[in-house]
Amino acid sequence: MLRAQGRAVHQCDGGWVPVYVDQEQSICLMSVGFLLENPDEAVVWRGPKKNALIKQFVSDVAWGQLDYLVVDTPPGTSDEHMATVDALRPYGPLGALVVTTPQAVSVGDVRRELTFCRKTGLRVLGVVENMSGFVCPHCAECTSIFSRGGGEELASHAGVPFLGSVPLDPELTKSLEEGRDFIREFPESPAFPALLSIAQKVLTEAPARVP
Amino acid sequence: MLRAQGRAVHQCDGGWVPVYVDQEQSICLMSVGFLLENPDEAVVWRGPKKNALIKQFVSDVAWGQLDYLVVDTPPGTSDEHMATVDALRPYGPLGALVVTTPQAVSVGDVRRELTFCRKTGLRVLGVVENMSGFVCPHCAECTSIFSRGGGEELASHAGVPFLGSVPLDPELTKSLEEGRDFIREFPESPAFPALLSIAQKVLTEAPARVP
Repeated sequence: MLRAQGRAVHQCDGGWVPVYVDQEQSICLMSVGFLLENPDEAVVWRGPKKNALIKQFVSDVAWGQLDYLVVDTPPGTSDEHMATVDALRPYGPLGALVVTTPQAVSVGDVRRELTFCRKTGLRVLGVVENMSGFVCPHCAECTSIFSRGGGEELASHAGVPFLGSVPLDPELTKSLEEGRDFIREFPESPAFPALLSIAQKVLTEAPARVP
Repeated sequence: MLRAQGRAVHQCDGGWVPVYVDQEQSICLMSVGFLLENPDEAVVWRGPKKNALIKQFVSDVAWGQLDYLVVDTPPGTSDEHMATVDALRPYGPLGALVVTTPQAVSVGDVRRELTFCRKTGLRVLGVVENMSGFVCPHCAECTSIFSRGGGEELASHAGVPFLGSVPLDPELTKSLEEGRDFIREFPESPAFPALLSIAQKVLTEAPARVP
C-alpha cells in the first residue's frame, strides 16, 4: 500500500533505520516483511518469538522524533496485542483505535477487543466502522452489503466515542493496490470526507505531544 | 451464524459433548465461546494456553463418528495454525481450504498461508476467492469492489486447484446475521451456485472416509 515492498532495513548506531516512504521523510515504517529474504515466506513463529520482535520494533528501531507511532495489529486479543501494549506502556500510549465492519459477527469479535483494552488499561480513542455501505458507481444507489450500524451501536453500548463510518469504495481499494495517492486522485470519493473527519477527531482526541 | 450462542457444553464419559445445532443432529460444533461465562469476555491467552485448548478440542471432545471435521482458523501462520496441524496430524487430515479476497494485500497474506501448508506438509485442497464482485440489487451491474481475479492467479501461481469465487451478497450476510437458512430462502442468490460448486469440488477432492 505504501510502495515499500522490497525495501531494505539498514543498521545505524541508534539501531535499525526504519524505511522512509516519501521524499519529505514524513512517514517511515517497520515491518517483519523487510527482514525476510523472500516476501512469500511464512513467518511461522510461536508467541515468544513474535513478542520479542515486537519489543525490538519499539526499542531497537531508530524512530527519531515522531508525532505519532501507529501500530497496526491483526484482529484478536493474543500475544501480539499483549506484547504491543506491554512494550508501549513505558511511553504512555495515547490509546487504541478500534475498527469493525458492521455485521454482528465482526462486532462480537471487536467487543472482545474493547474488553481487552479495559483489562490492559489501554484507553479507547474510539470505534470506526469500515466497509459501511456501498454506493453503486452505476446507479448511485447505496446498499448495506454487510448490515448496518453495528459500529455505532457497539460504541454507544461500550460508552466509547464513535468516530465515523467509511463506505466501501472500489477506487480506494484500487489506489491501495497500486500504491497511488488516493487523497489527491479521488477527492470526490465518498470515503474521503469520512476518513478526513475520523482523522480530525483522532487528532483532537489525541493531540501529538510536544516534547 | 448457527444460532448456537449461549448454548452450554456438557460432560459425558467420552469427554465434552459438542453442541448440536440442528434437530437431525447432523452438525455439531465446539468453540471457546461455549466455555466462557460472559460472551463479551476477551480470551487474553498467550500461545501455550491456546495450543493446549486446541489439542483438547481434538482429543477430549466426544465427536463420535464424523464425516468431516472442519476447523475454521483465524488468518495467519502462528500458534493456532501450528497447534491445529500438530493435533490433527495423527488422524491424517484431508487438507486445507484456503480462502482469500481478491485484492493484492490479502493475496500476499494468503500466499504465506500456502507456504505454511507446504512447510508443515499439509495438502492444499484448493483456493477460494471470497467477496468477489458485487451485483447491485438496484441496477444489476457488477462492480469489483476489491479488485478482481487475485484468488485464481494465486492458485495458478502456487500450482493448487482454484475452487471458485463467491460474490458479495447482502442476503447472505443478512441470513448469517440472523441465523437463517440461506440455502432454502435465497436459492436465486448469485452466491448460491458459487458455494454449491465449491462444496461439490471439495467433496470430490476429499471424499469422507468410510471407516
